[in-house]
Amino acid sequence: MKRIDSVKNPQVKGWKKLHTKKERDKTGLFIVEGFHLVEEALKHKENIKEVIISDEVEIPSAWNVDDVSIVWVKPDVMKAISDTETPQGAAAICYQSVMTELPSVQKVLLLDAIQDPGNLGTIIRTAEAAGIELVVIGEGSVDVYNSKVIRSTQGAIFHFPILKGNLGEVIAQLKEQNVAIYGTSLQNGKPYQEVQTASSFALMVGNEGNGVREEFLQQTDANLYIPIYGKSESLNVAVAAGILVYYLGGR
Amino acid sequence: MKRIDSVKNPQVKGWKKLHTKKERDKTGLFIVEGFHLVEEALKHKENIKEVIISDEVEIPSAWNVDDVSIVWVKPDVMKAISDTETPQGAAAICYQSVMTELPSVQKVLLLDAIQDPGNLGTIIRTAEAAGIELVVIGEGSVDVYNSKVIRSTQGAIFHFPILKGNLGEVIAQLKEQNVAIYGTSLQNGKPYQEVQTASSFALMVGNEGNGVREEFLQQTDANLYIPIYGKSESLNVAVAAGILVYYLGGR
Repeated sequence: MKRIDSVKNPQVKGWKKLHTKKERDKTGLFIVEGFHLVEEALKHKENIKEVIISDEVEIPSAWNVDDVSIVWVKPDVMKAISDTETPQGAAAICYQSVMTELPSVQKVLLLDAIQDPGNLGTIIRTAEAAGIELVVIGEGSVDVYNSKVIRSTQGAIFHFPILKGNLGEVIAQLKEQNVAIYGTSLQNGKPYQEVQTASSFALMVGNEGNGVREEFLQQTDANLYIPIYGKSESLNVAVAAGILVYYLGGR
Repeated sequence: MKRIDSVKNPQVKGWKKLHTKKERDKTGLFIVEGFHLVEEALKHKENIKEVIISDEVEIPSAWNVDDVSIVWVKPDVMKAISDTETPQGAAAICYQSVMTELPSVQKVLLLDAIQDPGNLGTIIRTAEAAGIELVVIGEGSVDVYNSKVIRSTQGAIFHFPILKGNLGEVIAQLKEQNVAIYGTSLQNGKPYQEVQTASSFALMVGNEGNGVREEFLQQTDANLYIPIYGKSESLNVAVAAGILVYYLGGR
């Protein structure tokens, strides 16, 4: 059993730095906090480097921590590595597992420059629930291992396939796999209800303010919009993605 | 033209207090911040008590501020009344306009104890866009005039009908109007796709952790769920509401 009492311990400093994208990129690690997320992480132990537990709390009896590296710490240490005001007493250091090569897939969600962490996490959670097989995160997006993104995925981050890459290249590869590509656009699209549900599709949604970039919209088979019956200009991107993935999947 | 230079001015103190629910309840007012929201508010001038502008900025030429009471303030005053780190220089004090009596309606969304401000605001924005006529906010919900709720509505708060009331009573009244009532429940429901789309319906969604209260689920015509095809336990409530209102409305 390992324990760390001092906030000045170099390992503690390393954990703390994982709240920055730079350190996450450098190490290939990320940090999750709270009992719910650590429990979700434990369902996929291969993701976990170590679980950090505060002296003040006990490991829940439901957790299977066989073969998991546990580090006990003083509450001060937990506070130092937490980005919440009142840390719960449990955290985990996990290995990143994004893909960089496109596998053979039938149902894909492509994301162009989603910037709000809550939106990105909610979209990943929704895609997983809807039976989407892969989320592709293009350039200009918030980091998927940002702690607010992870919280919003509600644990889906630990087992759901995510690819980071160039959207233009991914679209070209999906076309070779004969996957129909649907963009979303308020300007030059057709109502989504005019599209048939399908066993194979790629849906692309875009940035909160600007939508999907024109260069990508030009590569699609069709661009869709969700009709607005009120005075609002648009829907929240996570809500729009939810409506479309459930519709297109025939669900 | 009115101007206020001192953060100690009693009116400034009053504006600042509008960030608390207690003061909003007492005065029947609420405060909105930022150019986008003030512009949306100006589309419904009857809602506006006064618009507050910082010395440092100019009133955008596109704004119609005829007959609107404008108060110019020093940047320090704007900072004092803002709940954001970097205030934009424009704010407005608005009259609350929630209803307490149920009008005759065909499409209604009922909310049981939604607690996250972002979720509540996004649900109102989505309902307005989907052609829902009224959102009913039951007991135990976050205050609809909380500033994060208002931001998430993206302006829909200024013109969309909202009723605050007891959900049990509202359900009983809707039944008298022959509106079909659909609850949502992960346990004892049927897949939403088994319900016919309709020109008249009331959909009820509930608290992020606990869903709709059992006492209300027992009053419905049917309880629906959205099938989960992945490992997630549930969808975000704003996403779920979006999928269901677009489906039920035949849209």
